[in-house]
Amino acid sequence: MRLSRFLPVLEWGRAYNGTTLTNDLVAAGIVTIMLIPQSLAYAMLAGLPPEIGLYASILPIIAYALFGTSRALAVGPVAVISLMTLTAASSVAVPGSAEFIAAALVLALLSGLILLAMGILRLGFLANLLSHPVVSGFITASGLIIATSQLKSILGIKASGEALPELVSTLAANLPATNMPTLIIGGASTAFLFWVRKGLKPLLVSMGMKPRVADLSAKAGPIAAVAVSTLSVLLLDLEAAGVKTVGQIPQSLPPLTLPLFDVALWQQLAIPALLLSIIGFVESVSVAQTLAAKKRQRINPDQELIGLGAANVAAAFTGGYPVTGGFARSVVNFDAGAETPAAGAFTAIGIAIAALFLTPYLASLPIATLAATIIVAVLSLVDLKTPRHIWRYSRADFAAMAATILVTLLVGVEPGVIAGVGLSLGLFLWRASRPHAAVVGRVPGTEHFRNILRHSVFTDPRILTIRIDESLTYLNARWLEEFVLEQVAEHPQLQHLVLMASAVNAIDASALESLEAINHRLGDAGVALHLSEVKGPVMDALERSHLIGDLTGQVWLSQNEAFAQLIEQMQRAEQAEIARDPLLARGLI
Amino acid sequence: MRLSRFLPVLEWGRAYNGTTLTNDLVAAGIVTIMLIPQSLAYAMLAGLPPEIGLYASILPIIAYALFGTSRALAVGPVAVISLMTLTAASSVAVPGSAEFIAAALVLALLSGLILLAMGILRLGFLANLLSHPVVSGFITASGLIIATSQLKSILGIKASGEALPELVSTLAANLPATNMPTLIIGGASTAFLFWVRKGLKPLLVSMGMKPRVADLSAKAGPIAAVAVSTLSVLLLDLEAAGVKTVGQIPQSLPPLTLPLFDVALWQQLAIPALLLSIIGFVESVSVAQTLAAKKRQRINPDQELIGLGAANVAAAFTGGYPVTGGFARSVVNFDAGAETPAAGAFTAIGIAIAALFLTPYLASLPIATLAATIIVAVLSLVDLKTPRHIWRYSRADFAAMAATILVTLLVGVEPGVIAGVGLSLGLFLWRASRPHAAVVGRVPGTEHFRNILRHSVFTDPRILTIRIDESLTYLNARWLEEFVLEQVAEHPQLQHLVLMASAVNAIDASALESLEAINHRLGDAGVALHLSEVKGPVMDALERSHLIGDLTGQVWLSQNEAFAQLIEQMQRAEQAEIARDPLLARGLI
Repeated sequence: MRLSRFLPVLEWGRAYNGTTLTNDLVAAGIVTIMLIPQSLAYAMLAGLPPEIGLYASILPIIAYALFGTSRALAVGPVAVISLMTLTAASSVAVPGSAEFIAAALVLALLSGLILLAMGILRLGFLANLLSHPVVSGFITASGLIIATSQLKSILGIKASGEALPELVSTLAANLPATNMPTLIIGGASTAFLFWVRKGLKPLLVSMGMKPRVADLSAKAGPIAAVAVSTLSVLLLDLEAAGVKTVGQIPQSLPPLTLPLFDVALWQQLAIPALLLSIIGFVESVSVAQTLAAKKRQRINPDQELIGLGAANVAAAFTGGYPVTGGFARSVVNFDAGAETPAAGAFTAIGIAIAALFLTPYLASLPIATLAATIIVAVLSLVDLKTPRHIWRYSRADFAAMAATILVTLLVGVEPGVIAGVGLSLGLFLWRASRPHAAVVGRVPGTEHFRNILRHSVFTDPRILTIRIDESLTYLNARWLEEFVLEQVAEHPQLQHLVLMASAVNAIDASALESLEAINHRLGDAGVALHLSEVKGPVMDALERSHLIGDLTGQVWLSQNEAFAQLIEQMQRAEQAEIARDPLLARGLI
Repeated sequence: MRLSRFLPVLEWGRAYNGTTLTNDLVAAGIVTIMLIPQSLAYAMLAGLPPEIGLYASILPIIAYALFGTSRALAVGPVAVISLMTLTAASSVAVPGSAEFIAAALVLALLSGLILLAMGILRLGFLANLLSHPVVSGFITASGLIIATSQLKSILGIKASGEALPELVSTLAANLPATNMPTLIIGGASTAFLFWVRKGLKPLLVSMGMKPRVADLSAKAGPIAAVAVSTLSVLLLDLEAAGVKTVGQIPQSLPPLTLPLFDVALWQQLAIPALLLSIIGFVESVSVAQTLAAKKRQRINPDQELIGLGAANVAAAFTGGYPVTGGFARSVVNFDAGAETPAAGAFTAIGIAIAALFLTPYLASLPIATLAATIIVAVLSLVDLKTPRHIWRYSRADFAAMAATILVTLLVGVEPGVIAGVGLSLGLFLWRASRPHAAVVGRVPGTEHFRNILRHSVFTDPRILTIRIDESLTYLNARWLEEFVLEQVAEHPQLQHLVLMASAVNAIDASALESLEAINHRLGDAGVALHLSEVKGPVMDALERSHLIGDLTGQVWLSQNEAFAQLIEQMQRAEQAEIARDPLLARGLI
């Protein structure tokens, strides 16, 4: 039971049978065909030799199949993580160099260790810091940067930069050097792949194919583009005409590699690896959750961290680079009928076979075709509808999203994520530091107390009741002191202050100290502090403190009781005062 | 009106009269006497020449008097900020060197600019990140470090280090070199000052002095220690016996200084200056609030940032170092009857007179006596009761406090603050990521719905109602998805899920997207999603989204209505089913 929790394979493995095998094999076949060009393309996007994309699609998939909890997630190189790898590794080495490849291995290892540590320490909740608007904005901005960066391969020119300003200006500067044959191949591939995505399925369906089969057949579009463009290069000798190709790819299984244990390098790459890990985790978990929910299955996010961590460690030791669960391929895997993570393992075998036997045929594959597959894939990530919806729904969330998009586009991916997370957290803390509270009075003829600003209610100038609509924590403790003292300063006749705690789920030590401070300060000013409608668990905690003993007023079970009794007490005190003074008692003054 | 908000002096200045003047002058006299030895001592604690402590007590006080909102706060050098200055400036220069003094000026300027910026941008809420346990733990740990570091001056030996391990080991190593005359002066001063603090007031009272006068007279204790020990050094020629003294202090008003505009230095000191500013602000505001509340006055925290910022900028341009509102001296100022910030301005004049005319008499003042005043002052900051209270009240808060104390003592002041803030925030986010929620059912015979785990309630296997007891934000959006989908996975007969939102004050864009995802996923699984008891403002926001239109279920005004109507709907559907099937209708199957 406990072991199967850490090795989910033990659970689904027991129920494995012939039907599941067939379904998994079919799905693996389709995903393999889709993954071959994608792996090559994303490795080149990351500034790495193409075979590294294949290596990153073999052992990591098997590691995830052993430790992951999603039945349909397909792990491997993905666009956004490839871009982040390029950015991070570029800060320590020149893309394409041996040091760059070594930096990518270190990134994979660090990312794997960070994910494993987060999984073991159950820190998955830290991924919550990436709000939906930030993630959505980041992916849109990354998609735009990636698409722009691939234009250089479509045009057959050089361009550099990790953010839009430099990319666009270097592209514009080199535009006159455009290579026509490359542009024709790149343009045709892009147009073809867009058509495959939009127009092929309806065509196949109209020719009598079943929609699901038509949908899956359309996924072979990139392979067709690869085959046709490779053949064109070979037949028309386009390499001589300046069309850049993938070139010789070593025909081998993944090599065993040992990431560098270089403290300075690890320090330089630690923050990028952290950002990359969390972005990869968030992307992967949301895909896995969507697919699991369709079959009323569940995934375990903390165990997902371990699965993805194991996949990245596997990548680091088998010549790969950082990987995560990809959206498009996971959906294909699911739609193709994958039932267990074994489909992933079969995909890994498929890719291994490709690495061993197919690579010679890929030497003349034009890079422009790979760029076209990337452009078509990432433009589907660009989402211009969500910003509009978020603008309508919440300006604060829109601000976080806009900051993420703008900083990512104009400065770079890491500053973009940091800006978005920082602004979201800042806005959250700002709101948390001024929670909702209302001065309330009694609705005449009832026992209900409502906001004096919204209802016509009965109040007494000597009693003030403040209802607090949030848990009291260190983030709003100072606000509480200020708010209460301000109210007291505004009510010179005040004798009793009641804090109505019906919506307070917790009071932390800072808020407790603020309540104690309020109690003492009100005491100095001659005002008694009361609490009403304190929830059971909150009261249990307060009884372990000094507040209840030191309280200048009382704790009341109900607000209505507090109000009624305090008024009665004050009346009795006044009558006693009158009774003590014979002149007053006789009504002479 | 607007101007007086930024220049509070315009407000209290109008009502200034003879009585206020007398009261302010008396208070200023007492605070001046207390401040002279303290300013010298804290400057030396910060690794600076003693006169810098005097300079930091002149213009900064006047700047605060113009811009600050507290009537009684006394601004100047304080122990914890002096220690933080020592630590920060030591990272770029050797204590006592010209570069070190320059670094202290830069720290004051950066701190001033940070505080001003926070005040103008109304970022005072960021100080909330320092919870009470973290501040309390930090001050206790700083007090212990300061007291330990001063032992070297009491013993007349050398010691180094900013954290306890190095301090203690260097003290121990140099212990054999203890200078006896120094130890006698230091020990006697310390014992005398402790007695002044505890025993002098009762003695004076028993001699017939009024308690308040006795209390204030006792504040002159340090001056007596200074006078007696200086005379001893002069009369017994103790300098020849190895007793270190303050030495020649320039006899002058504060010099005009221009802090270095050195980008690299500013970058190195930016984080320390930020930490120092926030710690100083938090300390100062809590003192100011406490004193203001005693007279039912109020302070404005955002304007306090501006007051303290102006004080630090003034320090930077007049040969000072970072300052803030001190606890002990503010209480003395208040108790001595200070009514307006003018008392501060008079104190500044007093210190300026001291800097001009008293300094020649301080040359033979033993450093051991100053160390004694520091030890006695900071040991009152060490608070061992609060950790015990917090342990009893909340383990999470205790963990944050313990981390702050241990890291401060063992590693240093800056890592200590960062560890405390990081752990507090981490624990807060962790709790925020799993809010309280309950599956509820109807209490039989009522319209109330209560937790099924705590009450015996009526439920239906086809309807599940989850009551959420917190606002839905990006921090708990993922939890919401997981919690809801887990509940759905556990209830195979489920047809309707109702989210009871009576305690939800807000739904941000991330949580909205999670609700939309839940709606779609439940739709895929054949379960309708309903909402009940949505608050008005939340509903207004939701109506700007797609959720309400896409909802597979309905929005119900009351939970009771939702439950009753859904059961009725399902019964009607079953009857219709029966009616359609003639065999079923006739009861034959």
